[in-house]
Amino acid sequence: MLTPAIHATRNETLAAELDRAINNKTKPLGSLGALETLAKQIGLIQNTRQISISDPAILVFAADHGVVAEGISAYPQDVTWQMVENFLAKGAAINVFAAQNNCALYVVDAGVNHDFGPRDGLIDRKLAKGTHNFAQQAAMSNATCTAALEAGMALAAELKGNVVGFGEMGIGNTTAAAALMHKLTGIPVAECVGAGTGLSPDGVLHKQHVIEAAVARHSGAVTPFDILATFGGLEIAMMAGAMLKAAELRKVLLIDGFIVTSALLVAARMQPAILDYCVFSHCSNEQGHQKMLNALQARPLLNLGLRLGEGTGCALALPLLHAAANFVNQMATFESAQVSEKSE
Amino acid sequence: MLTPAIHATRNETLAAELDRAINNKTKPLGSLGALETLAKQIGLIQNTRQISISDPAILVFAADHGVVAEGISAYPQDVTWQMVENFLAKGAAINVFAAQNNCALYVVDAGVNHDFGPRDGLIDRKLAKGTHNFAQQAAMSNATCTAALEAGMALAAELKGNVVGFGEMGIGNTTAAAALMHKLTGIPVAECVGAGTGLSPDGVLHKQHVIEAAVARHSGAVTPFDILATFGGLEIAMMAGAMLKAAELRKVLLIDGFIVTSALLVAARMQPAILDYCVFSHCSNEQGHQKMLNALQARPLLNLGLRLGEGTGCALALPLLHAAANFVNQMATFESAQVSEKSE
Repeated sequence: MLTPAIHATRNETLAAELDRAINNKTKPLGSLGALETLAKQIGLIQNTRQISISDPAILVFAADHGVVAEGISAYPQDVTWQMVENFLAKGAAINVFAAQNNCALYVVDAGVNHDFGPRDGLIDRKLAKGTHNFAQQAAMSNATCTAALEAGMALAAELKGNVVGFGEMGIGNTTAAAALMHKLTGIPVAECVGAGTGLSPDGVLHKQHVIEAAVARHSGAVTPFDILATFGGLEIAMMAGAMLKAAELRKVLLIDGFIVTSALLVAARMQPAILDYCVFSHCSNEQGHQKMLNALQARPLLNLGLRLGEGTGCALALPLLHAAANFVNQMATFESAQVSEKSE
Repeated sequence: MLTPAIHATRNETLAAELDRAINNKTKPLGSLGALETLAKQIGLIQNTRQISISDPAILVFAADHGVVAEGISAYPQDVTWQMVENFLAKGAAINVFAAQNNCALYVVDAGVNHDFGPRDGLIDRKLAKGTHNFAQQAAMSNATCTAALEAGMALAAELKGNVVGFGEMGIGNTTAAAALMHKLTGIPVAECVGAGTGLSPDGVLHKQHVIEAAVARHSGAVTPFDILATFGGLEIAMMAGAMLKAAELRKVLLIDGFIVTSALLVAARMQPAILDYCVFSHCSNEQGHQKMLNALQARPLLNLGLRLGEGTGCALALPLLHAAANFVNQMATFESAQVSEKSE
């Protein structure tokens, strides 16, 4: 597998120029808070003072998970393909929010347990009808995991825009994400698991025990790649590949909730510089997401108690990216507007 | 003065219908978090299941403050009129964010210490060239305060849209807002004052002492109206009037930061039911705003460390109001999309 070469965005000259441009705008110093941080980050990613948001797109990766056989989800597995159908019919939350914010939406079948046949609007990258049950064996073979990463890279390489959001659909994938989180951060499993789509407290405890037993069984998985292959999902691996490639291409990566962040965690353990390219759209209500964000030293833009996935947080945060670019590009400066500056 | 009659939005039948509509959408129960709460609130305000966001507008009220003579601002008073010019030239942050989000913007001269003459785009409701210095005398006479409230009511009555955001510009107005906050909530002045546009710690302490001395001097101001007249601003009083009328007309009130919330605090002490109509766009970085929101039991949508005013938080939060309406109006239901529901 060819690993993308991701460069840190650090550039002190440009950073100083961006600071100057931001501070000269007609507003008290620092008064646009997180939008100022965001504008500077986008400038560094794009390596220019002329920051822009062009042709943003959200990729939604869908796949099934063998571990559902352990009874770890509140919804039946069929919901994965039914929701893919819902995406194609434009009836899901992500369709609504992407359309509202003029964001392209691409739905990728990374490994759903269903025959869709050729369908308009569905990008077929199915590698298997779901993963194996990681309670019993590795979720993916090394070859399948590599193929998923590479398929993701190829998809990211085809995007024309400079902002890519990531979303997912896959019944059972909070269980995979919690296992990845535990293995990659060392945070106890009990603090990684949550209710997902709506488990009872007993259900959450059962999910915890399933993961703990699997972690004990697969104690040999240590590298980020092995951990991904052992506990991940086809959608998670494909996302991680797309993230790596998108960062290499110096796109802004818009990160959604718990599962998307788990894919990033894998990618960041492979290539730490990827974090320079990430904008964290929101903090999910899924227990564990805040701690995962903390482990990445990430500060999310929104905190709306969302726990829907699909990339909905990305679509909802997109207007803030536009706002960051727009204030830098469109606001007057103290000089141009002839506004007096702060008294000394 | 004719006080608007604001009715509580409580309606159990409609609330149950809205819950049903929201819960039938193809998503896990409650998974859209704050957007679900917001959708329900808008439905109750509009008294319908067919919620809509039409012709949103932001009113920016500008005025000057006599208390600047006490040296309580980091910027000179001229910045008030200079920023009004900047609004008219479309160079300020609020121009950029309102335009981005297709929101009408109206700039109101409530009492700026400057002769603008007749100007396109400026709504002239000037009642005086700023308030008196409340360190020495009441900021406004009762007659002026009443006139400001009534002018605000008349402005709100002219708006055609169903969402009104509120913004302000006025050098010195965080001092007025902090005094109002203290008088109306009982929170100690030291916890109400903040850096405003960028005071030093010494400057903040001086501001605190100015307010404490004024509060001692005007101990007779007890009713919300008297407190407003004594410590408020022309823009604050006019905003409070516009808020009261907009709520009577069952519009959604979009509340910005520290100063706008202080105007709402006055209005809410006059008519508590107004709070049913308020959407709190963000929590400002101005120290005191979080406590003011707590006093109103308000949960803001955004927390971006903004402290710019002008209604910028309202403009930035507007896409979330659209999202709330859109998911209710456009998402498929489990039935329509034939998606399986949660297992029992």
